[in-house]
Amino acid sequence: MRTIRFRDPAGSIRRGELTDDGIVAFGDSSYDASAVDILPPSTPDKVVCIGRNYADHAAERGEDVPDRPLLFLKPPNTLAGHGDTVTLPAGKEKIEHEAELGVVIGEQCRDVDAADAMDIVEGCTIVNDISNRDDQRRETNWVRGKAFDGAAPIGPVVADPEHVPEDARIRLWVDGELRQDSTRDRLIFSIPELIEEITTYMTLEPGDVISTGTPEGVGPLTDGDRVEIEIEGIGRLEHGVEQD
Amino acid sequence: MRTIRFRDPAGSIRRGELTDDGIVAFGDSSYDASAVDILPPSTPDKVVCIGRNYADHAAERGEDVPDRPLLFLKPPNTLAGHGDTVTLPAGKEKIEHEAELGVVIGEQCRDVDAADAMDIVEGCTIVNDISNRDDQRRETNWVRGKAFDGAAPIGPVVADPEHVPEDARIRLWVDGELRQDSTRDRLIFSIPELIEEITTYMTLEPGDVISTGTPEGVGPLTDGDRVEIEIEGIGRLEHGVEQD
Repeated sequence: MRTIRFRDPAGSIRRGELTDDGIVAFGDSSYDASAVDILPPSTPDKVVCIGRNYADHAAERGEDVPDRPLLFLKPPNTLAGHGDTVTLPAGKEKIEHEAELGVVIGEQCRDVDAADAMDIVEGCTIVNDISNRDDQRRETNWVRGKAFDGAAPIGPVVADPEHVPEDARIRLWVDGELRQDSTRDRLIFSIPELIEEITTYMTLEPGDVISTGTPEGVGPLTDGDRVEIEIEGIGRLEHGVEQD
Repeated sequence: MRTIRFRDPAGSIRRGELTDDGIVAFGDSSYDASAVDILPPSTPDKVVCIGRNYADHAAERGEDVPDRPLLFLKPPNTLAGHGDTVTLPAGKEKIEHEAELGVVIGEQCRDVDAADAMDIVEGCTIVNDISNRDDQRRETNWVRGKAFDGAAPIGPVVADPEHVPEDARIRLWVDGELRQDSTRDRLIFSIPELIEEITTYMTLEPGDVISTGTPEGVGPLTDGDRVEIEIEGIGRLEHGVEQD
């Protein structure tokens, strides 16, 4: 199943299932996907992001692979939905896309063993971890660099984990040009390992998201760009970009 | 006015005013402060924290004063209330207290000029920015170090800004021993300057908190410690600490 969250034509926020025939709201009627506003698929308290979790991306950034997961945070102001246009911070020279597999948490949890970690996962989604390098390289914690408004387009759906192959292909295009093309099996720290490490310190709540890191191929975003990210078994996230 | 958020004896979450005679709930009855559970005074999406915002604290940490505010984030899992006992991460050798003046945001805002910044402030509160140095010194972003469960005891009230003097005294005791003793006027970046800088990048929501940094005197917390923080014009935040 692929679940979706949306605002219907009357303005109500609903959840439903995305099918080949459109959206079927839970216990309700059907909608044409093009007639609704698709929203971020969950309402996280926090997005816990992982840095340098693909060796080829660490290499292209000139960094070592970390000895344990590199964690950073995106708060709720960073969320943007499928079809939205993100306004990038003004006056920055280098803002880049980072296509990532997102994990949506289904149950409140703490101190989860990796062996049990998939029990608390609701499903998988797509995240663009948009990164403002001008500030990221100047600051101790990546707040201006990673936590600006709209820095986490996410969605369009949450897919059951069993529908996402271990070697799921992850691709990102800007204006139709393929920029990132990798597979999930190149992750250094797996989803269960990430959940164990994060929940050693933090309670995860239903709807919270872990964004698992980006493979090589990150590149610039500029005013007017159209971004598409496809992950096998989940679908395709599309959003625009504008910059003053 | 000093506003407080609490769970009444019947389990309902209420807001009210803390007076010399007890708590007066808005549009409702009075409560004895000792008969209710005092909760964090707001429900922030995010706590935006400031590092090294007192020159004497930067010096004691062996760090330079930053050329612009050092920002980091505490998500909602970090919140603890007045009277709570925080469980520190297990197996860490150096976890420290940091007494801080907190600013509670009253209105959704973005791109606020410093000159207008106090218009969007609901009031002031007290924060203990508990810091796990074992991990903080090892990680790129301070997530294990600063964002663990309970790492932000906050409260007990939100006080009107005009009740908090520009040179308000900030003191912290552990088991009755005075550890930190400074004044608000030693802040490097003022509250309006912080709001302008943060909202250049991020939307602040009602209830969000800015924790403005700690003065010198940070020191260790261990199992069984009792922490009290007093800020002139706000009141006194008390909490316990336990560690396995």
